[in-house]
Order: sequence, then C-alpha cells, then structure tokens
Amino acid sequence: MQSSYFRKNIEKMVGYVPGEQPQDGEYIKLNTNENPYPPSPKVLTALKEAVNEKLRLYPDPSATAVKEKVAEILGTRPERVMVGNGSDELLTIIIRCFVGKGDKVVYPYPTYLLYKILSDIQDGTVCTVDFHEDYSLPEEIVDKGGSIIFLCNPNSPSGTMTSVDEVSNIAAKTESVIVVDEAYVDFANDNCLRLVDEHPNLIILRTLSKSYSLAGMRLGFAIAQEGLISGMMKVKDSYNIDRLSIAAAVAALGDQETFRENVAKIRGTRERLMDALKKLGFSVYRSQTNFVMIKCANNFAAKDIYERLKEQKILIRYIEEPGLEDCLRITVGTEGEIDALLEKMGQIKHSS
Amino acid sequence: MQSSYFRKNIEKMVGYVPGEQPQDGEYIKLNTNENPYPPSPKVLTALKEAVNEKLRLYPDPSATAVKEKVAEILGTRPERVMVGNGSDELLTIIIRCFVGKGDKVVYPYPTYLLYKILSDIQDGTVCTVDFHEDYSLPEEIVDKGGSIIFLCNPNSPSGTMTSVDEVSNIAAKTESVIVVDEAYVDFANDNCLRLVDEHPNLIILRTLSKSYSLAGMRLGFAIAQEGLISGMMKVKDSYNIDRLSIAAAVAALGDQETFRENVAKIRGTRERLMDALKKLGFSVYRSQTNFVMIKCANNFAAKDIYERLKEQKILIRYIEEPGLEDCLRITVGTEGEIDALLEKMGQIKHSS
Repeated sequence: MQSSYFRKNIEKMVGYVPGEQPQDGEYIKLNTNENPYPPSPKVLTALKEAVNEKLRLYPDPSATAVKEKVAEILGTRPERVMVGNGSDELLTIIIRCFVGKGDKVVYPYPTYLLYKILSDIQDGTVCTVDFHEDYSLPEEIVDKGGSIIFLCNPNSPSGTMTSVDEVSNIAAKTESVIVVDEAYVDFANDNCLRLVDEHPNLIILRTLSKSYSLAGMRLGFAIAQEGLISGMMKVKDSYNIDRLSIAAAVAALGDQETFRENVAKIRGTRERLMDALKKLGFSVYRSQTNFVMIKCANNFAAKDIYERLKEQKILIRYIEEPGLEDCLRITVGTEGEIDALLEKMGQIKHSS
Repeated sequence: MQSSYFRKNIEKMVGYVPGEQPQDGEYIKLNTNENPYPPSPKVLTALKEAVNEKLRLYPDPSATAVKEKVAEILGTRPERVMVGNGSDELLTIIIRCFVGKGDKVVYPYPTYLLYKILSDIQDGTVCTVDFHEDYSLPEEIVDKGGSIIFLCNPNSPSGTMTSVDEVSNIAAKTESVIVVDEAYVDFANDNCLRLVDEHPNLIILRTLSKSYSLAGMRLGFAIAQEGLISGMMKVKDSYNIDRLSIAAAVAALGDQETFRENVAKIRGTRERLMDALKKLGFSVYRSQTNFVMIKCANNFAAKDIYERLKEQKILIRYIEEPGLEDCLRITVGTEGEIDALLEKMGQIKHSS
C-alpha cells in the first residue's frame, strides 16, 4: 500500500533488510559481525567528556579531527580522507556521484546485498559476475563497462579475500571507479591502502564498526586521491557526523593497543572456530574477516541449523539468496560464545 | 582539479557552504541559528548512561524509541514517523524518492540554499517562484508541475511564515509532494502538523537542532501518511541513527518543560531584538523563528556591518545570493549576547 508519488524504480525495489537486531540482550549475537569485545575504555572516557553543553552547537562539517587522526594512523594526508555516518553513508554518496539512470554497477556475486539496493535507488543497471566456486575473482569483471565496480574485500558473506596484486591489476585495466570496501580488512593479512597512490580511480572504504567495536556509533571513512574526495564532499550532507561520533572516532583510532589486542584475539578465535567446524564436517571457507562462512550438506540442513540455534538463543546469519541457501555465516564471538555455539552445533549434528 | 569520473551534473555543481563554524569558542555565534541555551540536563544524564559497552552493537535500524516518543508528544502514530540524521538527511532521502533526472523541483525564492544543491545532485530541474516583497507566497507555486515543492515554513532566511490555511490550499490544489520544512516551527504561533491527516502528499520535517538545543547530535524527523513513510524507509541507510543520538532524542523529547522554557525565553528575546533593530532604523521582517532578518540601506552597508561585527568577534550571517545582498540574518542569542550585539550595531550605525 505504497503511494504512487514515488519514482518508478523506488516503487518497484525492495529495501535492504538488516540482520536481526533484538534489543533485549537475550541472544548470543553471531549474526551481524559486531565485535564481541567492548570499545576501548578511552573511547568511553572521551565520550563522557564530550557529553556537555556544546551539543547545542553544530559539529565541524568536515570532521577534521577524525581526518587528521586517520591520516596519522594510516600514513596518508587528511585531504585524501572523507568521513561518513558509517561506511554505508559513503557507499550512498559514492553511488550518487558516479551512477546515473541506466549506468552499469558491477560487482562479483555473492557479496554485500546493499550494492544492489543502492543501484536500484539510483536507477542504475546491476551487472554481476559470479565468483568462482572457491571465491576467486573472475577476470571478466573489468570487461563489463561499469561506471563503478564494488569489491567487498575481504568479501561478505564468504570471508575470502582477493589479493592486493589482483585488485591492482583490475584497477589498472579499467576506466571504472573501483570501490574496495575494506570493512573487514583489519582482520586480514593485507590490505589495498597502498594502491591509492597509483590508481586515481580507486576508493578504499573502512569502518570503525567491526575492528574498533563501534557499530553503535556509525563511523566510516573513505580514502582516495584528492580529485575523488573533493567531488564526493559536494554530495555529502553538511553535518553528517555528530559531535559524539567525532569524539569517539578520535579516541578509538588513538588507542591502537586495544585495537590490536582485540583484533588478535578475534583472529585467534577465528582459527579455532574454523578448525572445529571442519571437524564437525562442514566445508569452511578461508576467512580473512571476523566471521566464518560454512557450506552445509544441503539447503534444508543450513536453514535447520539456523533455526535450531535461534531456538536456543544463538543468532547466526542465514541469507536467502541464490547460491547461498546451503551456507551459514557465523560471526566470531568471544571464546565463551564460540564454545557455546560449537557445543550446540555438535548436538544438532549428532541428533540429525 | 576534479576527476572526470563524476556524473556531469555533479562535476558542474557547487556544494553547499555551511555557515562558519569556528571550533575555538572565541565568537558570539549568531550565524547558524543554534539555540543559545544548553540541552536539557536530562539529555546529558541519558547520554552518559548510554555511553557503555553496548556501543559495540548496531543501533535499532528504525530508531523505534524515538518514533514512539515523537508520536506520543505530537499525537500521531509511530508508523507516520521516520527519523533522520538531521532533517538534512531526510531532505536527501526525500529528493532521491521523488525526483529523477529532469524532474521539476519547485520552491519559493529566497529560501534554504540546500534545496537547490539537492536538486543539482539528483539532476533535477530547479524551478523557483520569487516570494512577494513582504515574503507572502505567490499562488503560482502550484502551477509549476513540480515533482516536489519545498516550503521552508517558517522560512529561512526571512523568518516569515505562510499560514497553515494557505499551505492546506496549496496541498489540495497540486499533485506534487509538498515538503513543509518546519525546522523553526517550534518558535512560531502555529504549525502544519494537523494537515497530515487530510493530505496524502504532505511531508512535515522537524529537527531537534534548534528548539531542543541539539544541533551537535543530528536528529530530525519526518511526519507523513504511512504510504509515504514506508517508501522513504526503503531509501534510508539501514543504521542511520547512532545509539547515542537515539538516547539523546528520547530524553530531549521527554523533557517538555525545559523545551518550553527555552522556547519562551528565545521568543521573548526575539521580540526585544526586533524592536531594538527597528529603533536603529533597519527594516525588520516579522520573525516566527529563532532568528531575525533585517534589510540595510544598501548592499555595502549589510556587508560592512557583517564584517565589522566579525572583527569584534560577533558572527552573524551575510548571504551572498541575489536579492539578499542588502540583508543580514541574526540568530537570537541569550539576553547578554543580544545586548552585546545591539551595542556594537549602535556604534557601527553612529560611526557611519
């Protein structure tokens, strides 16, 4: 029962459905790739200090303090950084910059579901290339004439990674803008940041949601050459980052020790989880992220495991998309949460 | 020096330039319509409580707690409410919903500069109708065949208001979606909320930036019939409102006493400011907002007053747009700030 005032493409499309977000705290949440460890205590301290009368004033429209901190930590220049209300907002800004009606939006499949939605909103033409069976990237991706190529790397939901050399080759071979969505890259062995110098068509996206435990604060950033960043700045809302998000981001980036400790713990737990899932008989994809994707014996098995875990107050992600019906995506939780998960999965496996 | 990867309309356009936001606290800031009084103490308390380990988790994608509070305070239903990262984000979502390439975007001139920018980003066709000399609304606004009509009401920068009856007439006479941007309406004598029941093409926008002293937190909301809201929800980013903004909004809306007191003080100071500016010899427009627009003897006088006040650490708004060169917009500050402003303006006036 929707009004006919909408553009046709908006009327037709289906919105993005985020993973379940029960707000009651009853569940072990292994479904939306949040970090199981709390944010740095320095973030909480900085936030409490920033909760003051200055909230009556607009924030810095450019979030300069965040740009400078990012530049310092990652060894780049503030002019090459743009801050967004989560990297989702940056994806939105990017598609509005480069994709008009009918323009091609290219990405490998399966990947982050939002790319299709953003293309639909923009009335773009989605053009996907299936990943190979092992989630290596088909070379045809450069031949599709996309105004933009989205590459979630490491990829969700598979957790797998395309090498930096391959990404560099693709960037060199195409006129498309390439968006390397590195939401999960802090859990990987390598990243594409160093490619920005060479490729004027490359945009790297990062987020504090996962590796910095700040999904609740909405903070992402883009890194690209100045020509891309300055154009993208024209499209963003003036005051897109609130005062507290700025304070949280500066403090989070400033505490590299907590960041490194948490990432190391999660990587350790990930390896244990992958081994245990293999022992339970699942096919396990090589994860470079804070989640693990497995393949079950069949579609029924996957959905059944998801549902039986949910009954027992453990949420994992079952994605009802073509080619993923026999897969499950499991966020790496604390050691205790993963113990609980593995115990239940063992029971389900033996009872079936 | 911008890259050629951009869509032509993005390349051509000029981004929005927000009013100066010096972050050093040196200035008396009467240039961006912030509230001079601090947010409710209950907001600060609620925020400090919400600064905790849960920030690692995504927020509620629908900001349900805010929608319910808005519905309770304004006497509507949560299904008719949508929450945005400032009302700027809602304006962005709205234009993406209803305006495709070449579609007409209609609004009276002069008004909020962002409407033009949003139309340019969307590759829409801007079609303006000049306000009458006294800022009453020309009836032709309904005849332009706009996909959308923006009506900032009360209007910025003039501070003047179109009556609710007139808005209702316009809504009834047109097939366009009408966005009544009520960012400043809490300082006015009336508002258009009651029109939502009658008009399926009407969207009301409100913000906590001004009347609730929360410009730094970015919180706006839209109220419209369910058909419009449900379509708009498809276009918004999943997690557009962070956990702390949700907490701040619920607490701010919950403290109607502080809200009413601050609004009453500002309205009182506004009347005093208007009287004093008239006595200084300026033409003063009838303000229904937390700012006052005046007309100076000539363009030079306006710019001169702006610059001389700035030298003395008082910022007001001089807008270099056709028809506004002889005008100045002054935010209503505290009694003390307005005393300081009037003293300096008196000196400038006598020395010229």
